[in-house]
Amino acid sequence: MPVSRHSTLIRPLVQRLHPYVPGEQPKIKGLTKLNTNENPYPPSPRVLAAVKAAVDGRLRLYPNPTAEALREKLAKLHRCAPENIIIGNGSDELLALATRAFVEPGGVIQFFTPCYSLYSVLAEIHGARARPVPLAEDFALPPPRDAQAWQARVPLTFVTTPNAPGGRGYTTPELEALCRAHKGVVVLDEAYVDFAQENALSLALKFPHVLVARTFSKGYSLCFQRVGYFVGSAALIGALQKIRDSYNVNGLGQIAAIATLEDLPYYRRNFQRIIAARERLTEELCALEFVVLPSQTNFILVRPPAFPAEAWQEKLRRQKVLVRWFKDPATRDFLRITIGTDEEADILLRAARKLL
Amino acid sequence: MPVSRHSTLIRPLVQRLHPYVPGEQPKIKGLTKLNTNENPYPPSPRVLAAVKAAVDGRLRLYPNPTAEALREKLAKLHRCAPENIIIGNGSDELLALATRAFVEPGGVIQFFTPCYSLYSVLAEIHGARARPVPLAEDFALPPPRDAQAWQARVPLTFVTTPNAPGGRGYTTPELEALCRAHKGVVVLDEAYVDFAQENALSLALKFPHVLVARTFSKGYSLCFQRVGYFVGSAALIGALQKIRDSYNVNGLGQIAAIATLEDLPYYRRNFQRIIAARERLTEELCALEFVVLPSQTNFILVRPPAFPAEAWQEKLRRQKVLVRWFKDPATRDFLRITIGTDEEADILLRAARKLL
Repeated sequence: MPVSRHSTLIRPLVQRLHPYVPGEQPKIKGLTKLNTNENPYPPSPRVLAAVKAAVDGRLRLYPNPTAEALREKLAKLHRCAPENIIIGNGSDELLALATRAFVEPGGVIQFFTPCYSLYSVLAEIHGARARPVPLAEDFALPPPRDAQAWQARVPLTFVTTPNAPGGRGYTTPELEALCRAHKGVVVLDEAYVDFAQENALSLALKFPHVLVARTFSKGYSLCFQRVGYFVGSAALIGALQKIRDSYNVNGLGQIAAIATLEDLPYYRRNFQRIIAARERLTEELCALEFVVLPSQTNFILVRPPAFPAEAWQEKLRRQKVLVRWFKDPATRDFLRITIGTDEEADILLRAARKLL
Repeated sequence: MPVSRHSTLIRPLVQRLHPYVPGEQPKIKGLTKLNTNENPYPPSPRVLAAVKAAVDGRLRLYPNPTAEALREKLAKLHRCAPENIIIGNGSDELLALATRAFVEPGGVIQFFTPCYSLYSVLAEIHGARARPVPLAEDFALPPPRDAQAWQARVPLTFVTTPNAPGGRGYTTPELEALCRAHKGVVVLDEAYVDFAQENALSLALKFPHVLVARTFSKGYSLCFQRVGYFVGSAALIGALQKIRDSYNVNGLGQIAAIATLEDLPYYRRNFQRIIAARERLTEELCALEFVVLPSQTNFILVRPPAFPAEAWQEKLRRQKVLVRWFKDPATRDFLRITIGTDEEADILLRAARKLL
């Protein structure tokens, strides 16, 4: 059978797709990896012990299909009911489910750019029209009544808050004004909120059309095990539950997340260390004439001096330091640098001084 | 805001959905669980050791996004290239991806019934039309040229082989005839093939429109960690890769699956034990006047004597033995019983004798 037959087997929409490109996961040892916003600190010793203790004959059994115990624990933490929570195979899965639950193919998915670059990929995959709305130059949200800038009636709007890759945080009152003005579903994607001054979780429990996305990946050092969640009205959460895979969250991931919630002080200390490292790295880079945007996340977006950002990425890579550069016109003059340990910051600073 | 607003936020298609109901995962201890086709034997000691050894600081990092090492190992095992393999968060994820990659919303998804009950749910979720084609009464496939029974040009056809919940195995020549006749994508879902006399993996590497689905759940005692895979042409596999979540397979699941492939003799011994237990339980149930259909899986479909099948399920449950009953007209006179250990078979047999 000729190869061209594939063109009749695969949907034209899928043939045209450009897949999301995740940050490089290098195989070479000895690299300083400041490119994918991973937490520099391991999970708490109690979490590691809980997971190790669960590696036994139970692996032969299906995990709890609704991650019930984890949802109950999160409900207590957030003062809501388990019905207000859905657990995903990372929050990425839930972002994808939201496109399929709330948007007809051909419908509009709106987001404020620059933002998490996955949203536009999800719109393409679903056959929806992506509607990118530019943020202000300082990454501020457009005012809520600015009908020129954004549309209130689109079925789904994603807001990365704090912003990625910009790092800027938004206040709860400004997010509330935005939610109030919207008629369709609004997902406040708080992947980085543990490093911010405030969070908007209350809005997910106040408005029937607002969902807040959280993840155990960044703040809780659990990227490997893929656990994220949404909080929102029982009706929206119930719609997502209907369309997810039956056993979408692996069992050891559920156990790790539950143990995480039993050792929150360990993680809060890490948030503080990362915030302190962020402030220090910001100062040091400013001294080297980098422009550093204010950040409420575990990364900073910086405009480097002397060479173009893309060249910096390449030069730093040769010094064994990985940072991330995005081709997008709004960010192509910038590098995104993950906040690691103080030692990792020193390695980056030494490499930068050498290159200047 | 009134609750009725939800009806404008959630797609009508999703509001109408009946979600897939997974088998009960009881919280009560001391039940004999023969209802969800889990393997009675734990993963191999080497697999448990490999997973335990990996529970460390690496959990903070993203897993390999394409499960590269696992794909390489599977490619060697199946004598194909890594490009012929995609790993999923269980094979369920891949079955869902196939609906979205190969079928336009409104298109047709065909399957031979009775079969894995997820297919019709996936069709509904995707807004596709489910086309169930009845198997013969003995669960045989309809002849490949029987245009009355099935359509060759639908974009996607699922075949559960060996059949579930029937247990019947199909020969590679009859599956090849079926694949040859089909024009759209055919997924041969071999979730239970480790307990069968033969498998049809060669067809996935022979035909550009055929995919074979496999899972580590049943044969390899790894339900908890959600690892399944598809084998097929690079073009079809590539289409699925484009639309999956970026980090869809958790890291410890990848490690467990790799270690599994390094200890296959352990699992082959378990297949033989389960097959022996199946033959023995079949004989004993026949002696109690159950009608037992021939099975090439780790379960048997039986027509019980004396009371209706639904009543048997309830009565056995009161004896602390869980089996599965399906409401579907084709199977409502039957119980599906998972093959556990010989001890579990004894418990079931004692309970059955007591009830008769």
